[in-house]
Amino acid sequence: MMLTDGLFGDEELGGVMGASAQIAAMLLSEAALARVQGRLGIIPVDAAQAIAAKAETLHPDPASLTEAAGRAGIGAQAVVGALKTACGDHAGWVHFGATSQDIQDTGLILQLREALPIIEGRIRALDDMLAAKAVEYAALPVPARTRFQLAAPTTLGAKISVWRAPLTRHLDRLAELRPRLLNISFYGAAGTGAALAPRMGEVRAAMAAELDLGAPVVPWHAARDAIVELGGWLALVTGSLGKIGADLILLGQSEIGEVSAGTGGGSSTMPQKSNPVAAEALVSLARLNAGAVGMLHQAMIHAQERDGSALALEWQTLPGMVVRTGAALRLAQDLAGTLAPCPARIAATFANDRGAMLAEAAGFHLSRHMPRAEALKLVSAALAEVAASETETLAGALSRLAPDHDWATILIPVRNTGDAGSTI
Amino acid sequence: MMLTDGLFGDEELGGVMGASAQIAAMLLSEAALARVQGRLGIIPVDAAQAIAAKAETLHPDPASLTEAAGRAGIGAQAVVGALKTACGDHAGWVHFGATSQDIQDTGLILQLREALPIIEGRIRALDDMLAAKAVEYAALPVPARTRFQLAAPTTLGAKISVWRAPLTRHLDRLAELRPRLLNISFYGAAGTGAALAPRMGEVRAAMAAELDLGAPVVPWHAARDAIVELGGWLALVTGSLGKIGADLILLGQSEIGEVSAGTGGGSSTMPQKSNPVAAEALVSLARLNAGAVGMLHQAMIHAQERDGSALALEWQTLPGMVVRTGAALRLAQDLAGTLAPCPARIAATFANDRGAMLAEAAGFHLSRHMPRAEALKLVSAALAEVAASETETLAGALSRLAPDHDWATILIPVRNTGDAGSTI
Amino acid sequence: MMLTDGLFGDEELGGVMGASAQIAAMLLSEAALARVQGRLGIIPVDAAQAIAAKAETLHPDPASLTEAAGRAGIGAQAVVGALKTACGDHAGWVHFGATSQDIQDTGLILQLREALPIIEGRIRALDDMLAAKAVEYAALPVPARTRFQLAAPTTLGAKISVWRAPLTRHLDRLAELRPRLLNISFYGAAGTGAALAPRMGEVRAAMAAELDLGAPVVPWHAARDAIVELGGWLALVTGSLGKIGADLILLGQSEIGEVSAGTGGGSSTMPQKSNPVAAEALVSLARLNAGAVGMLHQAMIHAQERDGSALALEWQTLPGMVVRTGAALRLAQDLAGTLAPCPARIAATFANDRGAMLAEAAGFHLSRHMPRAEALKLVSAALAEVAASETETLAGALSRLAPDHDWATILIPVRNTGDAGSTI
Amino acid sequence: MMLTDGLFGDEELGGVMGASAQIAAMLLSEAALARVQGRLGIIPVDAAQAIAAKAETLHPDPASLTEAAGRAGIGAQAVVGALKTACGDHAGWVHFGATSQDIQDTGLILQLREALPIIEGRIRALDDMLAAKAVEYAALPVPARTRFQLAAPTTLGAKISVWRAPLTRHLDRLAELRPRLLNISFYGAAGTGAALAPRMGEVRAAMAAELDLGAPVVPWHAARDAIVELGGWLALVTGSLGKIGADLILLGQSEIGEVSAGTGGGSSTMPQKSNPVAAEALVSLARLNAGAVGMLHQAMIHAQERDGSALALEWQTLPGMVVRTGAALRLAQDLAGTLAPCPARIAATFANDRGAMLAEAAGFHLSRHMPRAEALKLVSAALAEVAASETETLAGALSRLAPDHDWATILIPVRNTGDAGSTI
Repeated sequence: MMLTDGLFGDEELGGVMGASAQIAAMLLSEAALARVQGRLGIIPVDAAQAIAAKAETLHPDPASLTEAAGRAGIGAQAVVGALKTACGDHAGWVHFGATSQDIQDTGLILQLREALPIIEGRIRALDDMLAAKAVEYAALPVPARTRFQLAAPTTLGAKISVWRAPLTRHLDRLAELRPRLLNISFYGAAGTGAALAPRMGEVRAAMAAELDLGAPVVPWHAARDAIVELGGWLALVTGSLGKIGADLILLGQSEIGEVSAGTGGGSSTMPQKSNPVAAEALVSLARLNAGAVGMLHQAMIHAQERDGSALALEWQTLPGMVVRTGAALRLAQDLAGTLAPCPARIAATFANDRGAMLAEAAGFHLSRHMPRAEALKLVSAALAEVAASETETLAGALSRLAPDHDWATILIPVRNTGDAGSTI
Repeated sequence: MMLTDGLFGDEELGGVMGASAQIAAMLLSEAALARVQGRLGIIPVDAAQAIAAKAETLHPDPASLTEAAGRAGIGAQAVVGALKTACGDHAGWVHFGATSQDIQDTGLILQLREALPIIEGRIRALDDMLAAKAVEYAALPVPARTRFQLAAPTTLGAKISVWRAPLTRHLDRLAELRPRLLNISFYGAAGTGAALAPRMGEVRAAMAAELDLGAPVVPWHAARDAIVELGGWLALVTGSLGKIGADLILLGQSEIGEVSAGTGGGSSTMPQKSNPVAAEALVSLARLNAGAVGMLHQAMIHAQERDGSALALEWQTLPGMVVRTGAALRLAQDLAGTLAPCPARIAATFANDRGAMLAEAAGFHLSRHMPRAEALKLVSAALAEVAASETETLAGALSRLAPDHDWATILIPVRNTGDAGSTI
Repeated sequence: MMLTDGLFGDEELGGVMGASAQIAAMLLSEAALARVQGRLGIIPVDAAQAIAAKAETLHPDPASLTEAAGRAGIGAQAVVGALKTACGDHAGWVHFGATSQDIQDTGLILQLREALPIIEGRIRALDDMLAAKAVEYAALPVPARTRFQLAAPTTLGAKISVWRAPLTRHLDRLAELRPRLLNISFYGAAGTGAALAPRMGEVRAAMAAELDLGAPVVPWHAARDAIVELGGWLALVTGSLGKIGADLILLGQSEIGEVSAGTGGGSSTMPQKSNPVAAEALVSLARLNAGAVGMLHQAMIHAQERDGSALALEWQTLPGMVVRTGAALRLAQDLAGTLAPCPARIAATFANDRGAMLAEAAGFHLSRHMPRAEALKLVSAALAEVAASETETLAGALSRLAPDHDWATILIPVRNTGDAGSTI
Repeated sequence: MMLTDGLFGDEELGGVMGASAQIAAMLLSEAALARVQGRLGIIPVDAAQAIAAKAETLHPDPASLTEAAGRAGIGAQAVVGALKTACGDHAGWVHFGATSQDIQDTGLILQLREALPIIEGRIRALDDMLAAKAVEYAALPVPARTRFQLAAPTTLGAKISVWRAPLTRHLDRLAELRPRLLNISFYGAAGTGAALAPRMGEVRAAMAAELDLGAPVVPWHAARDAIVELGGWLALVTGSLGKIGADLILLGQSEIGEVSAGTGGGSSTMPQKSNPVAAEALVSLARLNAGAVGMLHQAMIHAQERDGSALALEWQTLPGMVVRTGAALRLAQDLAGTLAPCPARIAATFANDRGAMLAEAAGFHLSRHMPRAEALKLVSAALAEVAASETETLAGALSRLAPDHDWATILIPVRNTGDAGSTI
């Protein structure tokens, strides 16, 4: 628990990925296994019923399991132990033919199956909110800035479209990775299902059906690409939100203030301040997930049929990534919902720029009337006059240097946002 | 250049991703742009032809461009500059309506389009080689090892299937990400195409057709998810190969020697040694790409319409990832092609284990004849006898403790590899 | 909370770095500030006394502060708010002239000051345990392995010396970094101490003295090198322990078993297994801290006078690193305390090697009696005979090829451990 | 080679860390070894002389060694091979008693010994340049910005002091780490010096003296903390420079422009632009080194007496870090040398802020004349008036609300920079 959990944590996803939910998910896996094995005549039906009933009602305090889990280096062992104890005489039929990793992984997948729709829903909601804002501000000219310098006009709607475009792609990616990810693990100690062979495949398929998950034939105990792919996806999502955060921080600087979003955080000593707390957090969450995804990839170097060192990297890394993604989406929604331009500040930026942002436009306009080199030379001369003066505008300078054009009209920002509208 | 480039580098992909190829790819982009703009009447036809011809034949020495590229902080500017110089009077129509980033990115995509089939081809070839080995050794029992301990029998074929399974998934992922990646960039300074509006979309589509790439409507100057997704994919590939490397290192330890692969590297002072150079390199390459993918994700936090700090992270990171992936695949092929089990060493491992690896099997066998708890107790007693002796086997101990079973037959490894065959 | 906290967590350091301790440390900072300001006549003495008394007795529930802390994006604001509320009429003199970051950082340093001696003590204790083991096994020949191959004899004591050597260096590094780290932060909103100038330096020095910390003149609000240096140090410590873990995993493989340490973890289905849980965890903890230190370095890119994005990276990363270092040291102590060689297994390794590990020794011996090239050729021939046979030893082969030497004596491992003893 | 090497590369340090210099450094190590062994009567004097002479004059083309180096997975073997070939009959005495790693590491240390003074010199030069600027602008009030918002006045000199302070600490750290780093490696195959025992220590000490390096008794073949510590130091340096880069980017935004530094990079299509190329590069270089240092820490998990996988991580990572540090320092010098405030823009910022940045100052001033709560309430009321108006200033509003104070004088920025001067 950290003091800033209200910002960087997420109650809903923290719950889904937490220790209690993890235990419940593993117990659900054991319940499904027992029920299926009872039905298939692999374990006694009464044992199956008793185990499933216990598994679905047992709610061990996570703290009561940490000692056993720590000793084994894997949570599943402690959970299986608790279930066996609870099942008394039926204990021998608990976890029958399974290995700890089977249950640990199946439980994890059940947790992720619960987490993903929450995340997906938040992405869709965020996208809808941004879509509405993009439409609302489709024609509002704002400065584009490249490499931290004023560049040329765009529209606020187009800016928001750039934020949105990756979200759609993330949804596509999620749809693609889901079937690779949402699979049970049930392969037994050596990945061969030896304990239940030749009926292993049958049990696995039935257990998968019971849990409504897939069941690949080749064990993924030691081939963790689907987990790491998910981590990469989470970091892609937070990375895209981090970009929104960075933009909002920069647009919201005291000296710029063109767009506001969220309610600023106060200072303990400077009463005038309004800190971009949520936008900063989006950047932090993106960087944290970027670091975490590198760690997950390290976990792919997995020795032999099971590697406790590598697995622990996953276990210590993935849940936090899920929670951070949830937090980032929640914060991004807060920001998107309250996002509002400040037309006066935007106008001030254009005014202070005195048309320099339209230099490219001026050059292209002139190129239609004279050789391009000559056109560019004229614009440069005009820009030099603008730079040398405190008040001269590009339109003013050009009106002297190339008087046959209605520069005051040509160089209005709103006429120079190109196809920005087509991106909405 | 590093001394160990013969190991960690890759001549073919190093070429595709190198500076000369990068320049050529950018020039190809300019050629396509000029040709299309000539055809559409946006620039004079003779200028278009002259520019395209120059762009396709110009081969500036990369060293001649580093000064200008360093000053601009982006290679494209130097390339565009060189092309303009070469085009003389037509210079004004070079790069017409484009921004440096458009050409930099389109060039990058052209390079990646050339790199991906090479990588894909190597994955397929590797998979074929591994498939052949999996079939060849489908029924060869070898020990599975979990958490660095002998676990239970599997087959060498099943082991290889675990290596193969992610490769197929990687090919699926590649097919999915390709359309998100293989797109031109042509959006102009502010991403609005203002210089060419209202014909920007028309030019973009034509240029994309010319280069046989896609052309999303929303600019991806500042939304780098497709690039980072590719990096994630490359690291997934090398991660999977790193797992093969780790397994081969461990299987090839002097004391184990169950599987050999590749030709070992010699020692400068220990003549008996044969170092697993290629397998170690697979691990190194995987870890390096794992670190690199984290860096790429940091580059997603991209300020405003163009962020030179973030872009440089990509440029410094992605080409090395591509080359490392190529190197890892080449090394993995070398290893896969020469992979061979040593039956004597495998037999020795099973012999030295004296049946402990069959403890699970014994327990499941007995469970069919007595209460499970009792069965497990018997097996534990037998294991204790094995552990206490230097020569006793599990079969021997069980033959005394549970004499009604033909343990010598029951506990043969080859009879206890379960459904390993189903994974081939 | 995670199920495996018993392994990867650390109760003592988890407490020191936890939310309650963080609040207490910040309150202690406020108490010191108030007391000093009262003494110096900067705030009323009765207010100072009341504030200090409240600050030292207030124990707000962390959960009650997360809402305010999340809103501000910094825990200190919530703590200061709670203290002000508790101080009633004296609230105006609470936190007088300070900024949130001052208190946040001073609190952090107080926590770290408590954590470091715990870590240091554990390093010393570990080093003592290892020193005793190094002495005990100073002359016990064991195989050295380079690049995962048997190399040449060394001693177990020398192996342990290689583990110890970095520990001493880590203690030196800690002594060096301490004065750079253990400093208060008290610089005010803009780092200028404007609120209390010209008495700011006086207050800062007195507050530092009160807390027995240093007080650099230049603010470190935005210059985080000392914090990152500490993170680097923590990762160096866990990296060194990760090497011990990797070695113990490899030495403890079923097929090698030359050294055992700790009590193995059981399997849920394979009764014969004894998993190297603690050794694996040392590797995981090292890799996690390695990833974390990269993240901390990202936090050095800190904008302007205070950057909430960068600070959050620290806050989310550093406490976990401290706890992981504590956990790794605790586990390493468990392993060091129980470390024991298995002479029979070591002897078996040497026997199975049949003298190949002594090839270098044989070459150097012969070089004293004949041209070196000739000597090496002889040894190669002998090695070839060893490799071709199942039973031939290097001594046997050389006895035929170079009969004038007492090879059975010359090639005894214990006579070929060089200066291994000098490292103890 | 990359197109932007002029920015991200460094010719001088690229040379020192390059393949030719690496070969030369390894040959120098062999020369020293031969000379010492000749002197001590361990190898024939004529062989020693011949080897040393060859080693010091041999300049093999790096490209000619990559095949052998790649096969061995370590550059030293190829270099030793080339030297042996060159030494003809004396080949047997080349590299006598050494292992490849000894020479690889000693060569690396020689390269680093050459690189460090260059880096140190650049830090000192940068610090001097910044010191001069800090003095020059010691009393120039500029806004401090916290969390991307205007905060309160500081001085440009104080800002520069915050940049400088870590540089001094980095120099201290360098002095501390040097003796841990600048050591030869000469321990032989198994780290025991068996080939030369009992004279190994004598040879090692003499070789170290010959090369003017230290010679720890315990081998560091597999204990890489000093190398990783160096990497951490390099990343600390670039991290501190990355902060300068971030600040200069933000201060140089079109809308702020308070400080300029360096010559801006042009745009390919927007003639008015001046991109902060060098400042952006400082950020990129810092992030790249931050990622790299995490990778180096991964390399500490080093198996047994030599781990090719781990070593390759170092070799692929460290040289780039050195070069990047050099590049960052070179760019920082360019920026520091040309750094100049724009008084008009600074004045404009203060003017546009209309005194809000002085809110804290106003509160503290009033607190000396009335209860603090009342004072803060007055300031808040004044701030509200400022915010509600387009022209009202804090001084103006307070002059109405608390007329007994000379607000126009009290709230001048230059009177409210506190002890900023004390930091210079």
